[in-house]
Amino acid sequence: MTRGLTIFPVAGMPEVRPKDDLVGLVIAALAKAKERLADGDVVVIAQKVVSKSEGRIVKLADVEPSERAKTMAAEGNKDPRQLEVVLRETKAILRWERGVLICETHHGFVCANAGVDRSNAGQPDAVVLLPVDPDASAGRIRDEIARRASARVAVVVTDTFGRAWREGHTNVAIGIAGLPALKRYMGQTDPEGYELRVTEIAVADEVAGAAELVMGKLDRCPVAIVRGVAFAEPSETARDHVRPAARDLFR
Amino acid sequence: MTRGLTIFPVAGMPEVRPKDDLVGLVIAALAKAKERLADGDVVVIAQKVVSKSEGRIVKLADVEPSERAKTMAAEGNKDPRQLEVVLRETKAILRWERGVLICETHHGFVCANAGVDRSNAGQPDAVVLLPVDPDASAGRIRDEIARRASARVAVVVTDTFGRAWREGHTNVAIGIAGLPALKRYMGQTDPEGYELRVTEIAVADEVAGAAELVMGKLDRCPVAIVRGVAFAEPSETARDHVRPAARDLFR
Repeated sequence: MTRGLTIFPVAGMPEVRPKDDLVGLVIAALAKAKERLADGDVVVIAQKVVSKSEGRIVKLADVEPSERAKTMAAEGNKDPRQLEVVLRETKAILRWERGVLICETHHGFVCANAGVDRSNAGQPDAVVLLPVDPDASAGRIRDEIARRASARVAVVVTDTFGRAWREGHTNVAIGIAGLPALKRYMGQTDPEGYELRVTEIAVADEVAGAAELVMGKLDRCPVAIVRGVAFAEPSETARDHVRPAARDLFR
Repeated sequence: MTRGLTIFPVAGMPEVRPKDDLVGLVIAALAKAKERLADGDVVVIAQKVVSKSEGRIVKLADVEPSERAKTMAAEGNKDPRQLEVVLRETKAILRWERGVLICETHHGFVCANAGVDRSNAGQPDAVVLLPVDPDASAGRIRDEIARRASARVAVVVTDTFGRAWREGHTNVAIGIAGLPALKRYMGQTDPEGYELRVTEIAVADEVAGAAELVMGKLDRCPVAIVRGVAFAEPSETARDHVRPAARDLFR
């Protein structure tokens, strides 16, 4: 097998709670599974556990919904407190139709409900928010792994987003450290001399999706290792995946 | 390593030409690399070589552009003959702005230029079209592999499509045989009893993206094997990935 990839789940992670030492939990789970991180590995971590370890959980009982949230909640048959949290995480609303709310988050990501989610919060009547700065989260995790596990890895923080035109969600990169977001073929030509049609491949998103195949939603496996991805520095951020609104034809 | 995935490129494929025996070329390349297909493998094949083997190449010298193609070509600074081929492959135009043409193909896929591409055609002044029925192509390849390599594999035919809101293209499934398109969590709940927010994961698209990580655009590696994907029958088609226009908020 030449230039292949291997992807394996980090089994045995416990429920992650606020202020938990996430990197410590990952290292312990790997050790228990007799796995060891290697230089060049990409550690893929679901946003939910990153957010929980960072305390990005809001108890709905503590939320006072605005009039706007109350009105929209009545229209869409939603919890006004949860909708209030969504609106606070939202920079712009792209669509609000048939109870579906597609938002641009303060980071620039376009996704349903600004990434705010009630499932798998680890406690009742609470919602989990996206990290404040998922690229910074990825960077911190990467640095800690370098320090505590002596491995020079890349880190991708992921969430599962829907897309236009195609059914199903895919796992995408919302935080990146040590990996480029895009692989660029700009200006390169095929053997006949024609410029390539596709000039940028979203490699970090493809890594996120690949890892999802072993992660699963119900069996508490929020971390996977992707080994063998060929990438060169420099590192980019997940913001490099965000298409500037002025160049987006679908808003 | 438990429940892991391995992904490896099928190295050494020659340039594929019309009427070539694509499955024979794949089997020969695998044999030369001392690899062997196993039951449960997913064979991921770039659309370009499937289309070429099926003769889906149009020489631009043979194309008489319509008045509409001529007008649009002048507006967008494009080759009117190539645009004519694109329009023939198009069911509906979603956007035509700044020289970018986003189409719904006759299959229902939404992508730039209806998937018509001049690069890597293998001959000058020619364009490659998407297969007429990529699911049927995948099914034929799957059946032939079963017969000639005695392996019960799944097959995914892929192309790299752009998306709304995010930069870069990702590899997606446009033809599927022996694999579901979507993994469904509908009605399932988390430990607190909340229904999962994300209820459908586009697994075939994630498999396509994962395979792209080893395929590359310039080094002629149009085939990869993804080993270890856990999936149950029944098989679906790539049409299951297509969101019906009436339910799409971004047209």
